[in-house]
Amino acid sequence: MERAGVRPMTTVQQADELIQAQVRNYGTERVPFELAVGRVLAEDLTADRDMPAFNRVTMDGIAISYNDFKNGAREFHIAGTQAAGEPPIDIDANGQCVEIMTGAVMPQSVDTVIRYEDVEMNGSTALILVDQIEQGQNLHLRGRDRKQGDVVATKGTLITPALINTIASVGKTEVLVNKQPRVVIISSGDELVEVNETPSPWQIRRSNSYTLKAVLQQYGLTADMRHIPDEPQQTRESIGHCLENYDVILLSGGVSMGKFDYIPRALEELSVAKIIHKVQQRPGKPFWFGASADGVLVFAFPGNPVATFMGAYRYFIPWLQASVGMQTKQPVYAVLSEDFTFKPELQYFLQVQLGYTTEGKLTAKPIAGNGSGDFANLADTDAFMELPLEKTTFKAGEVYRVWLFK
Amino acid sequence: MERAGVRPMTTVQQADELIQAQVRNYGTERVPFELAVGRVLAEDLTADRDMPAFNRVTMDGIAISYNDFKNGAREFHIAGTQAAGEPPIDIDANGQCVEIMTGAVMPQSVDTVIRYEDVEMNGSTALILVDQIEQGQNLHLRGRDRKQGDVVATKGTLITPALINTIASVGKTEVLVNKQPRVVIISSGDELVEVNETPSPWQIRRSNSYTLKAVLQQYGLTADMRHIPDEPQQTRESIGHCLENYDVILLSGGVSMGKFDYIPRALEELSVAKIIHKVQQRPGKPFWFGASADGVLVFAFPGNPVATFMGAYRYFIPWLQASVGMQTKQPVYAVLSEDFTFKPELQYFLQVQLGYTTEGKLTAKPIAGNGSGDFANLADTDAFMELPLEKTTFKAGEVYRVWLFK
Repeated sequence: MERAGVRPMTTVQQADELIQAQVRNYGTERVPFELAVGRVLAEDLTADRDMPAFNRVTMDGIAISYNDFKNGAREFHIAGTQAAGEPPIDIDANGQCVEIMTGAVMPQSVDTVIRYEDVEMNGSTALILVDQIEQGQNLHLRGRDRKQGDVVATKGTLITPALINTIASVGKTEVLVNKQPRVVIISSGDELVEVNETPSPWQIRRSNSYTLKAVLQQYGLTADMRHIPDEPQQTRESIGHCLENYDVILLSGGVSMGKFDYIPRALEELSVAKIIHKVQQRPGKPFWFGASADGVLVFAFPGNPVATFMGAYRYFIPWLQASVGMQTKQPVYAVLSEDFTFKPELQYFLQVQLGYTTEGKLTAKPIAGNGSGDFANLADTDAFMELPLEKTTFKAGEVYRVWLFK
Repeated sequence: MERAGVRPMTTVQQADELIQAQVRNYGTERVPFELAVGRVLAEDLTADRDMPAFNRVTMDGIAISYNDFKNGAREFHIAGTQAAGEPPIDIDANGQCVEIMTGAVMPQSVDTVIRYEDVEMNGSTALILVDQIEQGQNLHLRGRDRKQGDVVATKGTLITPALINTIASVGKTEVLVNKQPRVVIISSGDELVEVNETPSPWQIRRSNSYTLKAVLQQYGLTADMRHIPDEPQQTRESIGHCLENYDVILLSGGVSMGKFDYIPRALEELSVAKIIHKVQQRPGKPFWFGASADGVLVFAFPGNPVATFMGAYRYFIPWLQASVGMQTKQPVYAVLSEDFTFKPELQYFLQVQLGYTTEGKLTAKPIAGNGSGDFANLADTDAFMELPLEKTTFKAGEVYRVWLFK
């Protein structure tokens, strides 16, 4: 049992560093490209063809040789029709044109497209109604965006819906991505009953695990869930099983010093070494973090719902993103919109509602709750504002870092 | 066939209003709460019990009667142990204490908890080491956050991971949410082949549909996909089938004036009335929007990938959010970080990379592409900046609205 004041408490900054020192690499795997959004590329993607792969028409209309137009021709005989997806038709462009569709390949003998809006079509002839055209207009030239073999996305890139277009275009039905850790969320304690059960007057329903699962789901990670009753043998077996079958254990509650908290004992018996216990912050001071000899990591958040929620966004998600190879996100800063006072010598994570001004500023409005256990207000907020430890009064207009709930 | 200049083109603002006038209500449905993140509540949620439901201990330690302490008592006989989840033990507090755990119900005869750190435990006695305590400390009193019957989340609230905690706590295994529209994404054209196929030199792979599907997935909506070949009968049948089985049809390409664009004809034959055709914007000018007599909506984005992508975020997603009852999102504004010029009389959607300054500002850096068809750069950007139609030069430091890719 530790006593307050015996040694300086771990700061948030130190906790951050200790956790980042445990960033892992879980290898790579191939996944169907349609399921790859949110994952991180573990290979460079190259263009299998020029992009575009051919001189591609970008307007419906007629294709002519610019020279004919320059030499005064305005009326053209329609020699044929070139649809998208068809091989280029072979015409002698001299005074002739091709009726041509968006997406079609441009036949060799023509070089300029005039859109329907600027043409009068009369049976087999087309009359150009404009006096000014540019050679090569309404064409997307072969290889203009990328050449065959060019890298179109580099290893380490986060796969977004926009990148899906590139991946589909180059024909990668499966992409190599960084593997995610296998994560289990453990709740414990006989005071918890299932959501569909009616708690006795001194029990509550299990809720933190579902919140954690939902947070992870936002980041594309599906975690398993498990509940451990207050019984030493079962606790040990269950934790032991998880240490063998998962890369990360997330605990919410059950790691305090209480007489019936069998989890700290089980972790010790199973040789999970403590790296962090107690961080100079509110909420979430009793946060515990450790690693097994095999490298399985245990993030043990205090049982209060806001502390668990904050710990997930402040500690677990940044670790997860680093471990799947995501580039570090830029920190986000917001302008505090009201004065706020917080006296204890703890780094306070203030629940705020974000706003955007027409001056391009991000603002943060404190939403007062009933202390760290009141998650009912949490749903009205978008972020935690991380208020520096050194200060106790925070003035409207001051700027501090915020941690968005995605 | 419309000709340029015949009538003023629809502006982005007008397009917005015309689309918002078609906001629908698809009714409600019950879903398991674990699958409800991203959905919108169609009912008020109330607390089935006080929150907390009992006087809840928030620290491990001992529980005493404050009066004993006030009267000078520091050493207490440990009369029993109160674990979380167990009924309150019955003790006579006079000079006695209860060893008590976080999450436990507070027995009637005691009123104050002193944490282990401030107590010396010696067999069956506990010695309090501190001189200052507050009556009622380390307790979360029954009903302090909410009373039984209080509304804990109102109809119309977006379900976030934070709200999942509240939902689980009040025992709502299923929640009533607004139904989402049934959406089908249609690609068309013989120039398109599947992602796993090798295109002929004049074909390309189908990619826009997958991007659209991924964009919708970000918003929790799973769309079906369908491809229509360039053939009038099949086009008509396929669109007809979709009009009967879906609420919304999203088209990418196939609605231009081209000779082989059978879709406009099929839409006309199937009595889908045009509401918008062509918007004064780049990319995406040929955007088409209409509604069937039964109210099925058709968003037809131009085939170029950036135009489709922009149209999805600028027109479809705001319509979707309104139609599932989400409160209108606050507009987001950013500071342009470089000068930019755009001459055509079109509202330009500039691809930008967002940044955050330590002054709390959101910045937008233009990422130059090779015109509207170049989606290879799109993956490097986070948002479109909507540049006003009236201006042609945009200076660094000016602030404009941005549309984030989620």
